[in-house]
Amino acid sequence: MKRSNYFLPTIKENPSEAKIVSHRLMLRSGMIRQSSSGIYSWLPLGLRVLKKIEGIIRLEQDLIAQEILMPTIQDSEIWKKSGRFNDYGKEMLSFKDRHDHELLYGPTNEELITDIFSKNIISYKSLPLNLYHIQWKFRDEIRPRFGVMRGREFLMKDAYSFDIGKDNAILSYNKMFLNYLNIFNKIGLKALPVMADTGPIGGDLSHEFIILAPNGESEIYYDKAILNEGIPNINYADHENINKIVSKWTSYYTASDNKYNEKDFFNSVAEKNRSVGRGIEVGHLFYFGKKYSEPLKANITSKEGKNIFVSMGSYGIGVSRLVGAVIDVYNDDKGICWPESIAPYLFGIINFKQNDKECEKVCNEIYERLSNLGLSVLYDDRNESAGIKLAEMDLIGIPNQIRIGPRGISKGVIELVYRKDGNTKEFSISELYNYLDNFLLGN
Amino acid sequence: MKRSNYFLPTIKENPSEAKIVSHRLMLRSGMIRQSSSGIYSWLPLGLRVLKKIEGIIRLEQDLIAQEILMPTIQDSEIWKKSGRFNDYGKEMLSFKDRHDHELLYGPTNEELITDIFSKNIISYKSLPLNLYHIQWKFRDEIRPRFGVMRGREFLMKDAYSFDIGKDNAILSYNKMFLNYLNIFNKIGLKALPVMADTGPIGGDLSHEFIILAPNGESEIYYDKAILNEGIPNINYADHENINKIVSKWTSYYTASDNKYNEKDFFNSVAEKNRSVGRGIEVGHLFYFGKKYSEPLKANITSKEGKNIFVSMGSYGIGVSRLVGAVIDVYNDDKGICWPESIAPYLFGIINFKQNDKECEKVCNEIYERLSNLGLSVLYDDRNESAGIKLAEMDLIGIPNQIRIGPRGISKGVIELVYRKDGNTKEFSISELYNYLDNFLLGN
Repeated sequence: MKRSNYFLPTIKENPSEAKIVSHRLMLRSGMIRQSSSGIYSWLPLGLRVLKKIEGIIRLEQDLIAQEILMPTIQDSEIWKKSGRFNDYGKEMLSFKDRHDHELLYGPTNEELITDIFSKNIISYKSLPLNLYHIQWKFRDEIRPRFGVMRGREFLMKDAYSFDIGKDNAILSYNKMFLNYLNIFNKIGLKALPVMADTGPIGGDLSHEFIILAPNGESEIYYDKAILNEGIPNINYADHENINKIVSKWTSYYTASDNKYNEKDFFNSVAEKNRSVGRGIEVGHLFYFGKKYSEPLKANITSKEGKNIFVSMGSYGIGVSRLVGAVIDVYNDDKGICWPESIAPYLFGIINFKQNDKECEKVCNEIYERLSNLGLSVLYDDRNESAGIKLAEMDLIGIPNQIRIGPRGISKGVIELVYRKDGNTKEFSISELYNYLDNFLLGN
Repeated sequence: MKRSNYFLPTIKENPSEAKIVSHRLMLRSGMIRQSSSGIYSWLPLGLRVLKKIEGIIRLEQDLIAQEILMPTIQDSEIWKKSGRFNDYGKEMLSFKDRHDHELLYGPTNEELITDIFSKNIISYKSLPLNLYHIQWKFRDEIRPRFGVMRGREFLMKDAYSFDIGKDNAILSYNKMFLNYLNIFNKIGLKALPVMADTGPIGGDLSHEFIILAPNGESEIYYDKAILNEGIPNINYADHENINKIVSKWTSYYTASDNKYNEKDFFNSVAEKNRSVGRGIEVGHLFYFGKKYSEPLKANITSKEGKNIFVSMGSYGIGVSRLVGAVIDVYNDDKGICWPESIAPYLFGIINFKQNDKECEKVCNEIYERLSNLGLSVLYDDRNESAGIKLAEMDLIGIPNQIRIGPRGISKGVIELVYRKDGNTKEFSISELYNYLDNFLLGN
């Protein structure tokens, strides 16, 4: 993409309405714009990151679940059947259509998926079943704030598992547990699983996945030894091992403020390992057995011919929220520092002198090379000062920045600067091409 | 994907509520399920097709526009500014949030995009600009019917162009015109551009893109010579040529019933070329100048320092509707016949005798081979009769069906049957592998 044609309305000053780093930086870097309280439009740069995150989630979820897509608007009827119609209070946006029929904008999908299951699955042969979708949800927060971190319309990945009996359901839960560790790891985040309350979803087993960030919404008490746990490579067919790895992960003490108990913390964690930090919730697992399958009649015929209500769990990830969460973890005083796995562009090209024939020729050549290699690149080809270009490229956080100016060209030198640590490498053109050709191999 | 684990609830009988072929076949092939009047969930098979179509549209649109994503929920304020708040009547779903603030579920996005433009673009340097998004819309149809063809919640691609002056705006319109011809062609459809009314969108130039289908909603009168026009390979930088090709395409007489005029038809089309058919609208172009830019203050400073309201157009494609439209064109008495470009799976494997060791071994090998080649495949590995498997594979329309049974195996022969025409080829295993290895090259 060439910057001169790109819809990237960056802002120099900090917007006064933004109270946290991620909100400030998402506005300043032209990723989002608010259209109504807690409701945002995603501009090209922001949408690229959102889609990268969505892509990582999809690749991992496809290993253990099947993707479907439920609508945003639901019938209130099924919520009355499950008994949850009033559980979300005013956070649930409900309204009537032209025929006076009551509808709502889904804040979550337990009812609808259970309804789909009950109308389409009749036999044990179809189980286990795990279905997920990535769809916009709406929760009418009383005070939307912090940008996409606590918006009203937000993108969520939610999966739903259906099993016969609790043991199988817990195995599905555990698969999702490990799948989540991998997802957050691939996004570049260290996520801690934390025992959690179940709230209006219900059930008796639940974990939140929390990432540590200085301005996180809640306090997290944890055994810091958990930070040394490696992210396991998982064979989802090896059930025994799956349960074993989850047991290992859940053996560490972790609690957010609402579940924290000082006595337990002190008893189960050695003093040198007791850590307290702030965290952001990015995922949530629930096991709730037959809470929805009974009222919504999700039953199957077992191998033995018996009629059995299925045991279920649900599993959410805040996709749009993750964009903000990553920024809250990866930023400095210049702007965002994207991990490469979700960077909107892997490479930036900064032309220090746009009207210099030689500079332009070299920039265009490198731009073509990167494009042909399938390496995403943003080339700042505007007639602007070097200072403006450098500041913007840092603000929007492009990980690998190629800088080209007349002085370097005359010496046959091209600079590559890493956003992460500011380190610089110097290359001749042919060395640079060699480096780029092997870039994907090295990563 | 192995069929035994796949959530594919196919139905043998025709559902009584479905009045047209595409609706019947989408229900029978387990692609969608209705959750409320005119509101559907997309099950795995249906979602795959929807995403294929979305992917083709995205690839083409990216050549001339930048992708963004606006929210589903909009503020009614901007609709009052444009003067359109009442134009959609009861089709617009509007409601109040917990703070009694009036919101609506967007039926289209002219207001919101113009608002974004006005707040972020100030200079002629940023023009021309063309932004598109692919997002769910809601129109509260009085009688939702025909499945996804006239649903209430539907997926639409809508693009918006911003230019200085009418000539530039018409060039943007014409680029989109040709882009649409390519999109529908790649999906496998022959689309006729037809002069159209502008309705609540407004403006003075508009074309619908109509595909011919026996059960189309409107009558189309056209010069059949247009069917011989090739789909041009476009260089979007060659403005002169773009306008020339569009002039050629629009020189043919085409009209839907509401614009039809017998005198014009007879005068401009030779008798042997006068054709009448039924058609489905799948795309719509609008040029409406300053209808939105003036009330919503979308102005820029020109090169000469003048303040100018931008000239705009908008361009829609019914993405979810296209799934139904393709089926209405490509079906027979056995079911759907997907064009390869949007088929949910390119290949099917039917194992006639699941418990036969040799059959299973060969099927698994072919399944692995196809997966490794990146060719999508659905392997029916269930313990069901050959008849049930054959009927389902035809119903869901898999284009290339590999059939394996003990008789063939004993003779070293594997059958490949093409869904399109029922033609069969026989291969030895090594011939088949050779054919598959070269499949993408040949297509």
